[in-house]
Amino acid sequence: MARSRENTRARLLEAAHDVFAEVGLGAASVEAVCERAGFTRGAFYSNFETKDELFLALITQLAEDKLDEVAVRVRTLSGRDDPVDLVRQIADISLAERMEPQLLSEIRTQALRDDNLAAAFLAWREQMRVRVEAIITDVTSAHGIRLRMPLPDAAQLLLDVSEECSIRSSLERKSKRSANEALQSRLQQLVALLVEAA
Amino acid sequence: MARSRENTRARLLEAAHDVFAEVGLGAASVEAVCERAGFTRGAFYSNFETKDELFLALITQLAEDKLDEVAVRVRTLSGRDDPVDLVRQIADISLAERMEPQLLSEIRTQALRDDNLAAAFLAWREQMRVRVEAIITDVTSAHGIRLRMPLPDAAQLLLDVSEECSIRSSLERKSKRSANEALQSRLQQLVALLVEAA
Repeated sequence: MARSRENTRARLLEAAHDVFAEVGLGAASVEAVCERAGFTRGAFYSNFETKDELFLALITQLAEDKLDEVAVRVRTLSGRDDPVDLVRQIADISLAERMEPQLLSEIRTQALRDDNLAAAFLAWREQMRVRVEAIITDVTSAHGIRLRMPLPDAAQLLLDVSEECSIRSSLERKSKRSANEALQSRLQQLVALLVEAA
Repeated sequence: MARSRENTRARLLEAAHDVFAEVGLGAASVEAVCERAGFTRGAFYSNFETKDELFLALITQLAEDKLDEVAVRVRTLSGRDDPVDLVRQIADISLAERMEPQLLSEIRTQALRDDNLAAAFLAWREQMRVRVEAIITDVTSAHGIRLRMPLPDAAQLLLDVSEECSIRSSLERKSKRSANEALQSRLQQLVALLVEAA
């Protein structure tokens, strides 16, 4: 039962992504997502209370996948301690993938006019920031790196710059590869500012 | 004639702002803006080619007003050379004013799906970045400050962080005053990273 429930949820998220990519957040209806996934609305509402909850779950999944990938890379870092080189090893993750900057931008824009969505969006962003804090802590403690800014602020700064960079790359219609290169160089530059000289 | 044309344009921008605030970018029609301003569509189209051009003109005006205010402050800086103190003197400008984060967010989100708007939006952002570069150059040269990052990248970083900070403050439904305080502390923190130790 648990597995079939997971499968239902996964298929709804996949369908939500496809419908979003085609028509955007505003026009993506629960009906359209159910139809795409081949489920009844009953199946939908046994997994999600609202359309907003579905799309927050989708962007959470996309971000978690990325942060999981980063966390794995952190555990396999070479012994070299040059922070910029560490960024190169850590941050070479696929960006602008599967409409993510678009989805992030549309959810955030809607949240500016919707108090409930704003609260849920801010809670999600806080979860992401805390995960990034943990990753920074792993790297800095393992490599004896000291930051020139409090950890929470450094995590927020890395997230903010990554987000602006990914949205700009999407606006510039960059290929995934050149979007990744742009993010790489922005993050390396920022980390060079953030770390205390050895 | 020139003045009356300016007045027409100004009233259309004012009306565009009001209509946007009420219904958002998607639902704000040229008709609704003309009705609010008390003009015919002919008057509109003698000033703007499209609705997108109108709203880009509106956000350009809002941003220019802010940068003009910053440029004035730069010319009246006290002689003190502490960069963080300079930020306090320069950057205490009213943020989150007149729906700006909302408008910026909605225009950018639409640009992600609209190639023409994306090009116009990127061109506007580039103008803003160049203006910020000029302001940074004035301050750093007048006060003998050296940056730890190339000027264009520093200008982009300050813009990116300011934008993320202002949108977050709007999502948090902060008062204008506490939004300004949040921006102040973010920018002071960032400038402390950006400047070479004296």
